[in-house]
Amino acid sequence: MTEPNQLSSSPTIGVFDSGFGGLTVLRALLARLPQARFAFLGDTARLPYGSKSRRTIARYASESAQFLVSQQSAQYMVIACNTASALALDAIESAVPVPVLGVIEPGAAAARSASQTGDVLVIATDATVQSHAYAAACQARGLRAIEKACPLLVPLVEEGWTDHPVTAQVIRIYLDELLQVAAAQGMNPDTLVLGCTHYPLLRPLIEKAVPAGMQVIDSADAAADAAVHLFNLPLAGFAEEMGTAASKPELRCFATDSVDKFERLGGRFLGRPVGPVQLVDLGG
Amino acid sequence: MTEPNQLSSSPTIGVFDSGFGGLTVLRALLARLPQARFAFLGDTARLPYGSKSRRTIARYASESAQFLVSQQSAQYMVIACNTASALALDAIESAVPVPVLGVIEPGAAAARSASQTGDVLVIATDATVQSHAYAAACQARGLRAIEKACPLLVPLVEEGWTDHPVTAQVIRIYLDELLQVAAAQGMNPDTLVLGCTHYPLLRPLIEKAVPAGMQVIDSADAAADAAVHLFNLPLAGFAEEMGTAASKPELRCFATDSVDKFERLGGRFLGRPVGPVQLVDLGG
Repeated sequence: MTEPNQLSSSPTIGVFDSGFGGLTVLRALLARLPQARFAFLGDTARLPYGSKSRRTIARYASESAQFLVSQQSAQYMVIACNTASALALDAIESAVPVPVLGVIEPGAAAARSASQTGDVLVIATDATVQSHAYAAACQARGLRAIEKACPLLVPLVEEGWTDHPVTAQVIRIYLDELLQVAAAQGMNPDTLVLGCTHYPLLRPLIEKAVPAGMQVIDSADAAADAAVHLFNLPLAGFAEEMGTAASKPELRCFATDSVDKFERLGGRFLGRPVGPVQLVDLGG
Repeated sequence: MTEPNQLSSSPTIGVFDSGFGGLTVLRALLARLPQARFAFLGDTARLPYGSKSRRTIARYASESAQFLVSQQSAQYMVIACNTASALALDAIESAVPVPVLGVIEPGAAAARSASQTGDVLVIATDATVQSHAYAAACQARGLRAIEKACPLLVPLVEEGWTDHPVTAQVIRIYLDELLQVAAAQGMNPDTLVLGCTHYPLLRPLIEKAVPAGMQVIDSADAAADAAVHLFNLPLAGFAEEMGTAASKPELRCFATDSVDKFERLGGRFLGRPVGPVQLVDLGG
């Protein structure tokens, strides 16, 4: 007879992204679940998903989720990647036998709570926008949404220009274009959803650029809130059962490539050093 | 007994890039070899190579070259990708039994011809710069070179902002930083090498931004010139042997993903429509 499974008292939450932008989601999860175990995988060998096809993204994301479940014993899965959430949530749910949460639905739900006018703007990567997943999720909640791809924002964040005049100018250009489209359609948007895990690092610049009174919704925060509720985690029980009341969250980070870059830049997203990152080969 | 091999009278030149930026090299080749056959592969499912490790780039590039040689009968191979040329030329040469030409050596040779002072600037992707392949190739020719990664330029080109004030500003910032480093080292650079196949589309803005008298070297042009000489192609004989004196170059384009994007944006780089692009699966 094998040892009784101890995992029920300390579930591992798998968090997956195509890169390390999803560390903003992990940061939000850590703030809410300080005593949980986390295994984060960045599929950095195959990023960015944002410019790839649905078929390719579904395959990459499923393989990544399978790694976290079968090799890291994740019992819950958070897809901390808007593109994969938009294009591959069904595929991932079919690929792994654990509950899966994406970032799109929580983002749309938070927009529903925030918006008075019912008109919402969404900025995201090309692939997320082309999927119209946010528009669909908003529409299902009685919101009208206009989405805009902002492909320069991720490279600007990765260049470290998160407080740079060029970035402020690019944000203004994108937002002006988006507001013009909204006005032309007779909309009165009062809420902007940040539909990419890199964008929280631009939140200060974005909040300066939006019209007065417009709410900015961070889908990373929204997803972390939703994870706590959906997975119904026994938060209070963790510490006592593990006998480690003062313990820090257990965090293991994996990447399919560029471990150095992950370790070097990841801290900007996580808000603290990511520690050593293990290289894994998913065979693609 | 099988049919005699006809390929000797009409060699196929394989041209490979991680994306479709290498179409600027193909464009330069087409201008010089108007009656040759070309097979171009963009490994778009796995781009960008610029942020990946040497190991991963070598594997991806070798698989891509093998496709062009074994499945498209390429007898010559041009690596129209600075990152792959910098990090994987040896691996590609080991992987395929045909002559292989990268873009780094021709770019450095053109800089040697152009420079009076012997001091050269190189702008490129992160991975190309980190490899220091241009610096080494320049040094072997008695040049001093300083390299700078300009990771925002590719996304700016792909956003279509090739004549945009933001792009002009980003170019000025990058060049100013580079010129300051050169000055601090007591150098007197008179030549700038565009070490990325996307950059020829920014040539007008770059030429406005460089100091008066600085030569701008396009590694795409340099590589096409080198290919004609290195491969010693029987240019004059093509038309007669094929009985198609007035024929256009034969061009087949392949991509591992995002065929639509390739067809839509590729024309900007090739200078004419790319035509239908075939999707291929390299299994990764």
